[in-house]
Amino acid sequence: MEKRTEISELGEFGLIDRITRDFVNKNESTKIGVGDDAAVIDGGKDYLLLSTDMLVEGVHFDLSYMPIQHLGYKSISINVSDIAAMNGEPKQVVVNLGLSNRFSVEAVEKLYEGMAAACKDFKVDLVGGDTTSSPSGLILSVSITGSVARDKVALRSKVEIGDIICATGDLGAAYIGLQVLEREKQVFLANPEMQPNLAKYPYVTERQLKPKARTDIIYELAELNVKPKAMIDISDGLASELFHLAKQSGVGFFVYEDKLPIDKQTYDTAVEFNIDPITCVMNGGEDYELLFSISQEDYEKLKNHPDIHFIGYATEKEKGINLVTKNQNVVPIKAQGWDHFR
Amino acid sequence: MEKRTEISELGEFGLIDRITRDFVNKNESTKIGVGDDAAVIDGGKDYLLLSTDMLVEGVHFDLSYMPIQHLGYKSISINVSDIAAMNGEPKQVVVNLGLSNRFSVEAVEKLYEGMAAACKDFKVDLVGGDTTSSPSGLILSVSITGSVARDKVALRSKVEIGDIICATGDLGAAYIGLQVLEREKQVFLANPEMQPNLAKYPYVTERQLKPKARTDIIYELAELNVKPKAMIDISDGLASELFHLAKQSGVGFFVYEDKLPIDKQTYDTAVEFNIDPITCVMNGGEDYELLFSISQEDYEKLKNHPDIHFIGYATEKEKGINLVTKNQNVVPIKAQGWDHFR
Repeated sequence: MEKRTEISELGEFGLIDRITRDFVNKNESTKIGVGDDAAVIDGGKDYLLLSTDMLVEGVHFDLSYMPIQHLGYKSISINVSDIAAMNGEPKQVVVNLGLSNRFSVEAVEKLYEGMAAACKDFKVDLVGGDTTSSPSGLILSVSITGSVARDKVALRSKVEIGDIICATGDLGAAYIGLQVLEREKQVFLANPEMQPNLAKYPYVTERQLKPKARTDIIYELAELNVKPKAMIDISDGLASELFHLAKQSGVGFFVYEDKLPIDKQTYDTAVEFNIDPITCVMNGGEDYELLFSISQEDYEKLKNHPDIHFIGYATEKEKGINLVTKNQNVVPIKAQGWDHFR
Repeated sequence: MEKRTEISELGEFGLIDRITRDFVNKNESTKIGVGDDAAVIDGGKDYLLLSTDMLVEGVHFDLSYMPIQHLGYKSISINVSDIAAMNGEPKQVVVNLGLSNRFSVEAVEKLYEGMAAACKDFKVDLVGGDTTSSPSGLILSVSITGSVARDKVALRSKVEIGDIICATGDLGAAYIGLQVLEREKQVFLANPEMQPNLAKYPYVTERQLKPKARTDIIYELAELNVKPKAMIDISDGLASELFHLAKQSGVGFFVYEDKLPIDKQTYDTAVEFNIDPITCVMNGGEDYELLFSISQEDYEKLKNHPDIHFIGYATEKEKGINLVTKNQNVVPIKAQGWDHFR
């Protein structure tokens, strides 16, 4: 019998490590391949960035509560986020679309309206793609290019000991928004006469349904003359992203619970759902905020920015990745990011 | 009631026209967006090319006769073909993979072995991607970059009246190979004791299972100092590609039946299947050969090339797209390329 290893045994990142280990880059223009938010390609004057993401119905989205325009918007926005996470500017996207016969031309038009809105917001051009049928549901695969000056690119591997760790916006909202949407769906399925009660949760549901990539932060950092040393977008949860930065930079972290940014509606809704709000922040995914490190000397330039939070600092690798709680306990952080295969 | 238009009413190209008509390019670097084999991006010294293709299990491939390594090879090769069709050199790929729990790590490793072989053959670097679960079967979405000197790019819109139309290799084999594979599958399903009889059809089945992009032709044209004026790859069938060139260049064509390249095994197998061999050539897809136009003055440089066939010439748009049969009848060609939605 041939050996059969389940993908769930390795998980997404283990699988990627295993299948890509034998690939050797052959082109001089390939500067950085697998392993960051985007690949880095020597494109002449600036670096070209290339990234891609796939959204599969039944895995990444549920059209029973996700308006299809928002799905279109989100499919572009999450790709833009990967370019932002390299400190780059998004430029072009190509979109592959798989459609079952459940979808009408009008539904596809709405999907593209959402994409067009995102392309406008992020100044991105849709330049191609492939449209095909699918045996079950909707598949959206988007690839994106971006551009970044050679000396501005922010890699995951460049955190240095002593750097200040910054997070933008607030965290955990998209995750708790998903809990609200799932609950209201169950209520509706149990009794279709019941109308979903979403009015109480406008912020957290919007964060789940229509996330905005933080290109605004990229432009503001440039204006403030701050180059983030390392950067990643927070798509799988803060804990998971801290582990990526730690692993690739060979550092450890101290992160302070009382510095973690959380919106009041996120906090209150988490309490309502009997979920620890800090768990939402640490392990809830899909916020698409940015996590980055800066030199201590750059702190002064950013300290008054209303949307950048200084959540901790980088330390020696041996110290591990730690949360300092409100009552000054030091607790090791576990990576529990969202994994489709587990 | 909201209006519901079935996608099959518009077909793939009609759908693409409709959903992309409101997109306006905003970036200076976007030279050519939707509508050619690849997008053209101003990347500095050379043009950057960007293209993408998606393969969905049950629509584009059947793993009951497609070895999964070959699928990996094919997924890269068909993307390389799009770059070749711009007269470009392939550079980097990113791969999105959707996997149901039917697939083991070992199966995914074999898939990537095939991709690695193609990356080696075509000198392409795999630089990233996204791996996720899928509710049903395997989804492969590949995006590719390429590079072409600014004055060498071959667009679909540049055929001129009087140009000679060239096709590489031979046509129709992949389509008839698919018929063989489908027949043997039915035989096997009816009686699992029967072994598939493929030995008689090595060429046509290989053409279906493991197509090779014609980057060799691109390098040879450069060596022979011939710039193809317009170019497209033959993925949906010769007739369909002639229509694309005609529409985008505003020309018509005369194509000669006795000049169409067809392999003997393709011919014989078509006869065995009671299919007109010319139908295989005109309307069979997935050959991934190149169709291009050259100036008459370049004919001398190519006339001894064993793998380039001069199948016709471009004429006024009003004359339409025509096949000149062996007995000198002129028959209008109908586009009947493969459309997933019909």
